[in-house]
Amino acid sequence: MRKFFICTTALFVLFQLTVLCAFGQVTQLAPGVQKIALGTADRFTPYSFCNELPMSEALNQLGPGKLPFNVNDVKININSRGVVVEVPLDDTEQLYGFGMQIGSFNQRGLKKRPIVNDNPLNDLGYTHGPASFYVSNKGYGILINTSRYATFYCGNTAKLNNNRRDVKESNGGNSVEELYKSDNKASGYVTVDIPGAKGIEVFIFEGPDLKTVMQRYNLFSGGGALPAIWGLGVKYRVKADFNQYQVNKMAAYFRDNHIPCDVLGLEPRWQTASYSCSYVWNNSFFPTPDLFVDTMKNKGFHINLWEHAFVSPKSPLYQPLKNKAGNYLVWNGLVPDFADTAAANIFADYHRQTFVKQGISGFKMDECDNSNIAFGSATWSFPELSQFPSGIDGEQMHQLFGLLYQKTIYGIYKKLNQRTYLDVRASNAFASSYPAALYSDTYLHEEYIRMILNSGFAGMIWSPEVRESNTIKDFMRRSQTAVLSAQTLYNSWYLQNPPWLQINKEKNNKDELMENAKQVETDIRKLLNFRMSLIPYLYNAFADYHFKGIPPFRALVMDYPQDKNTFNLSDEYMIGESVLAAPLTEKMDERKVYLPEGTWYDYNTRQKYEGGKYYTIKPDLNQLPIFIKSGTILPLAKPVEYVSPDTKFEITCYVYGRANKATLFEDDGVTFNYEKGAYNSVNLLWEKNKGTVKRAGNFKKSRYVIKNWEIIN
Amino acid sequence: MRKFFICTTALFVLFQLTVLCAFGQVTQLAPGVQKIALGTADRFTPYSFCNELPMSEALNQLGPGKLPFNVNDVKININSRGVVVEVPLDDTEQLYGFGMQIGSFNQRGLKKRPIVNDNPLNDLGYTHGPASFYVSNKGYGILINTSRYATFYCGNTAKLNNNRRDVKESNGGNSVEELYKSDNKASGYVTVDIPGAKGIEVFIFEGPDLKTVMQRYNLFSGGGALPAIWGLGVKYRVKADFNQYQVNKMAAYFRDNHIPCDVLGLEPRWQTASYSCSYVWNNSFFPTPDLFVDTMKNKGFHINLWEHAFVSPKSPLYQPLKNKAGNYLVWNGLVPDFADTAAANIFADYHRQTFVKQGISGFKMDECDNSNIAFGSATWSFPELSQFPSGIDGEQMHQLFGLLYQKTIYGIYKKLNQRTYLDVRASNAFASSYPAALYSDTYLHEEYIRMILNSGFAGMIWSPEVRESNTIKDFMRRSQTAVLSAQTLYNSWYLQNPPWLQINKEKNNKDELMENAKQVETDIRKLLNFRMSLIPYLYNAFADYHFKGIPPFRALVMDYPQDKNTFNLSDEYMIGESVLAAPLTEKMDERKVYLPEGTWYDYNTRQKYEGGKYYTIKPDLNQLPIFIKSGTILPLAKPVEYVSPDTKFEITCYVYGRANKATLFEDDGVTFNYEKGAYNSVNLLWEKNKGTVKRAGNFKKSRYVIKNWEIIN
Repeated sequence: MRKFFICTTALFVLFQLTVLCAFGQVTQLAPGVQKIALGTADRFTPYSFCNELPMSEALNQLGPGKLPFNVNDVKININSRGVVVEVPLDDTEQLYGFGMQIGSFNQRGLKKRPIVNDNPLNDLGYTHGPASFYVSNKGYGILINTSRYATFYCGNTAKLNNNRRDVKESNGGNSVEELYKSDNKASGYVTVDIPGAKGIEVFIFEGPDLKTVMQRYNLFSGGGALPAIWGLGVKYRVKADFNQYQVNKMAAYFRDNHIPCDVLGLEPRWQTASYSCSYVWNNSFFPTPDLFVDTMKNKGFHINLWEHAFVSPKSPLYQPLKNKAGNYLVWNGLVPDFADTAAANIFADYHRQTFVKQGISGFKMDECDNSNIAFGSATWSFPELSQFPSGIDGEQMHQLFGLLYQKTIYGIYKKLNQRTYLDVRASNAFASSYPAALYSDTYLHEEYIRMILNSGFAGMIWSPEVRESNTIKDFMRRSQTAVLSAQTLYNSWYLQNPPWLQINKEKNNKDELMENAKQVETDIRKLLNFRMSLIPYLYNAFADYHFKGIPPFRALVMDYPQDKNTFNLSDEYMIGESVLAAPLTEKMDERKVYLPEGTWYDYNTRQKYEGGKYYTIKPDLNQLPIFIKSGTILPLAKPVEYVSPDTKFEITCYVYGRANKATLFEDDGVTFNYEKGAYNSVNLLWEKNKGTVKRAGNFKKSRYVIKNWEIIN
Repeated sequence: MRKFFICTTALFVLFQLTVLCAFGQVTQLAPGVQKIALGTADRFTPYSFCNELPMSEALNQLGPGKLPFNVNDVKININSRGVVVEVPLDDTEQLYGFGMQIGSFNQRGLKKRPIVNDNPLNDLGYTHGPASFYVSNKGYGILINTSRYATFYCGNTAKLNNNRRDVKESNGGNSVEELYKSDNKASGYVTVDIPGAKGIEVFIFEGPDLKTVMQRYNLFSGGGALPAIWGLGVKYRVKADFNQYQVNKMAAYFRDNHIPCDVLGLEPRWQTASYSCSYVWNNSFFPTPDLFVDTMKNKGFHINLWEHAFVSPKSPLYQPLKNKAGNYLVWNGLVPDFADTAAANIFADYHRQTFVKQGISGFKMDECDNSNIAFGSATWSFPELSQFPSGIDGEQMHQLFGLLYQKTIYGIYKKLNQRTYLDVRASNAFASSYPAALYSDTYLHEEYIRMILNSGFAGMIWSPEVRESNTIKDFMRRSQTAVLSAQTLYNSWYLQNPPWLQINKEKNNKDELMENAKQVETDIRKLLNFRMSLIPYLYNAFADYHFKGIPPFRALVMDYPQDKNTFNLSDEYMIGESVLAAPLTEKMDERKVYLPEGTWYDYNTRQKYEGGKYYTIKPDLNQLPIFIKSGTILPLAKPVEYVSPDTKFEITCYVYGRANKATLFEDDGVTFNYEKGAYNSVNLLWEKNKGTVKRAGNFKKSRYVIKNWEIIN
């Protein structure tokens, strides 16, 4: 790494309160990753907590980056209010990112405040997964390394006396009607407002293209997460007040009815106290937890425990953490100072000893997202004015709380060389390497789909969970989306029976099943079996996320950044290298699909389509609305009911078009031994009407058995 | 005034970043008004712009105040993040205020952020009229003198190691259901978070009761506003694109059909440019504005001009203000630095010369409230990071912009000894003396009613305007509320015809009138005539606002602070001394009314009710849902079509119960001569079955002629 200095001349001398800092320090952090620093940087930033080392080799292989502007065109202004950063923006650029945004996709022209919150109405930028990070289709990304509440003006401001660039001014109008019509594409810069900061670090991730930017970002963050392979199956969370007997019964239901399920999640009642948490098994509900976990394991179920991080006075963690917690309580519970390694270690050690060693395979880390109800009545989280022994304040702690919580829990598994797949309600930047899926209560299907796309710009994993539904159609559409996402999750925390037996909450809890429950169950089994078939392909996509930084789920604009038709396309996405998903919602019987350049195949009809055009599809409720790119081999496995360390996937290779290839990633699926090279690349090749399989690598077992080749032309 | 010092010992020593300030300075500002100051106070605060002197004599007459806590129990903590203020709160206190709140009434247990905004969803505290000021039914008010975005936790936080008071802790629960049920009445303090501040002034207004707190606040702010008497009539805003001919025609409609109207408001098209504003008559729409204003005046109409403060490059104000404006533009227009007297004077001088001297009697000051659309795309206002030559930043300017704008415009009229009644989209604390009514686009009738109550806790005036409606019932209910409010306003800025002729916008603009238009017109005439009858009573209520600080419109809890049934009663209010309004909304055919202690008469049925109980009323659509307190004389005038300086009100005194009295305030109605004593108190007395009228004061004319006495028993 080389360091050099550049003079960022402050061009706009404005008024007496402006403190001008004329020199910014530019540091090359990794190939194509630069940092501009000015003033006194904050101690508690997302990057300050990133312990993962950049994946240097992979970064080197990305080749040279390129910026469409000069680094010293990025202006930083420090004044008595805070820091203002201005980044050049040309008139045609499209912007994406700001973490797991919910209400918007293309952020050009918007004002965005990526602030952690559980119920982000009004599209202000509030989200479970805030990140002060955006990317441009011109091939670069800008990350403001702050955990303060920052505001981004994405090319929608105009300055007085602006001599810097061509500024396309707001049109205005002579009436409100005219005003609404004006395109408001003012300004030649993105402006970032970071009140309270006394200095700032700006990370610049170079392209040259959008996908490479995300690769650089993810690789710089330690590489994308590779979940335990069983995490790619089906997760089902049982009703909050289920006891050991009831969970056993539910487990039996899955196996008896041959419905795939890898993970059962327990909700609050497993603990003696849950708001706040005791982290102690409630023996009247779970009299023999050791036996329970073992029994479940023998039936192929992993157990995931719900909790949050607010520590009840009834918890054994209370006394050890009392002097390592914030000065405000939540539900009378401590807020651990996760910014202090000592506090995080106490929390982690207890969890390791008590649960992970017991066989608990993951946690659902709830309530770390500063609940919306906190807006009305602050009792769902701690105030921004909170103080913590480490010195972090409540505002910055809010932005980082989910990030630090998942880091704390993930660290347990990492140290034990045991992989996991976690659930977490909040995240932030540099979290790419954490195998933790974000989830939400907001439950608008359109938004859940959009968030799959936005997750790819965030280095985050998104789980569009399914609960109850208004109609069977709605339920099936949501299930399709869940199957085509990073985690297939049914969250029945308030449902007695699986929702496919009764979509209505009240009836479900009265055991009044639907008349056509068995038919819906059959359709769901079909969808979930497809999910199980897709695991090898998905697992390879996650390996590409880890080793190459390529988001496994991503917007089409990431692969086709020059195609204008993709700029605002917020309801189609790529899965892995060559599958395009176009999910439908309850309102739709059919939908319009845009297919970018190339040739594509409808997975269901096998019909061939030329790219660059719009088509209409009408998939059934028990089909998956996906297209396969020509030149692809789609390896689909014979569905298993769950993935065990011994599972051998029996693969059929579907060959779309000619001269095809694909890769499968092969390892034990449950340890980090792949980091030391214990994995194979299983290369599938279709040439001259013949399929070949070449295995390369150091993993000794083979988990994929190629059974068939099937040609689709 | 005496000054003294008190040691506010900081009791909670927390962590290394906390900067402790052990001494706060307490100053007695006026009888029952104290200020605690600590640290370096901000330059730009609401009080720093209050030029009005306290009404000392009236303040002296209020008698001694009383606080339920010791002044040095108010804790101020200054740290690197900003300032935190903690004010004692007991378990039974009820809190109100935070300016013109929309979504909530009793603020106890809520988190409120009184931040200026035009479309305040989610009840976060955002409002057109933010004020960092709350009052307690225990008889005191707390005003944080800041124009920063502050957050109030109204008794819903709990601290670790809290040794200070009895803290009722959050109940929590073992499930989310239990959690929702918990009452969350934690904490023995209101906590205020003021990020960015380096010091603070806390104003304490003493009681001993809730109404006296508001009297002190309003009197300290210079006394309540006394609008020009014609302002209490009916205001009608014409369609935005009406030309001179069309406005004349509309004026003729009112007079021909004997529908009262005092003010006609012009919308954007009167100007050559409006987004941003030129402040120049558009001669193709108004070829002879002087003639137009004169003609209207002769017909008894006052003309009000729509505008906002963002100055178009096409405006004669642009060059003079270019160096006295913020560094960001809005609709390509300047944002005048109203915090600089020189900028305000330029703006005012131009308006005086160009419009006020022409006879323009008021302005509608639009768009000064940081539009909601600004959340998505910032173009509807300036960014918080803006800088102004005076040194104020964009955040503080936003909070103060509407306040300074109305001060600027009001100052013109004040200097000319000419009264007015303005419209403004934003306000803040210490604005009691400004005769400017807030208005909104939000248009939820329930909220508009609640805002009438909240205006009384804010020293603000609220105008629940009527536009189109879904049903005639909705329209009539809204009209009833408008008649029973501080300003009766029909805002037809997008309606060709008066809405009572066609409630549907599309049909209205196609001149398709309703079949029963004439009947609805008759009903509206009846309601508006009642408004005109009420003017003498209302005018006296405003005189009480000015001279005694008593809010003319106020929640019942202000008059009955010990009555638990009033604590959350957010849809009934007092008008003046003895009229209780209980408006209905579209959904209601009847409603429940709570009548507090005493005896009350239904105005419509004349039925007598004992207080302390709930009753059901079912007023017709053309009646007003009001009750009159026993012991009252309600003086109602024979309705006039508009109020001129020569208007003599012919009064019938309605005597409710025995031993009654009432007062009317008598002056010229249009100048500030009353400040020099040129007014009369007309005292009405009913004793021993005989009515007497006693006039006291220095105003030479009599405007009220008492014609009749009518007894209701």
